[in-house]
Amino acid sequence: MNALNLARIQAFMREIKEWSLESNAIVKEFRFADFKSSMEFADKVAEISERMNHHPSILIEYGLVRLTITTHSEKGLTEKDFELAKEIDLLHK
Amino acid sequence: MNALNLARIQAFMREIKEWSLESNAIVKEFRFADFKSSMEFADKVAEISERMNHHPSILIEYGLVRLTITTHSEKGLTEKDFELAKEIDLLHK
Repeated sequence: MNALNLARIQAFMREIKEWSLESNAIVKEFRFADFKSSMEFADKVAEISERMNHHPSILIEYGLVRLTITTHSEKGLTEKDFELAKEIDLLHK
Repeated sequence: MNALNLARIQAFMREIKEWSLESNAIVKEFRFADFKSSMEFADKVAEISERMNHHPSILIEYGLVRLTITTHSEKGLTEKDFELAKEIDLLHK
């Protein structure tokens, strides 16, 4: 899967909500009431990422989960990154 | 629980292994073979932190878990931080 050019990245960005571009990655923060809820969400994200064989970086804090998605092998963003973001957004509507 | 002074922090640092001091926190990275193993370790850390009612920041990447422990309410390190670090080290000997 090849790295996307900027035009395609911008098109994909319009398909996902509240993710931001940070250098070669897309990033989103999810807020929760407590640590347990944050961890439960992180576990669901991990399940999806195992199934898709594509893994985000997950930062868990007390009431916050921050996800960073990129395709390391391409040193850029690919369709796979946006597919993962869309699946994750379905968890947390 | 009060923030520790530097002499006490240094004494506690000698009781834990491979943690480093970073401003007001102690930090340690744990390496794993894959994402699933990283996530399983993070879940165990979360269980301990729920039991102790003291929560680290947990960064999960493919083969890495990075823990950052501090006491936000004291804007510094307390005994509770080192107690949590010791419990976590028992998981991963």
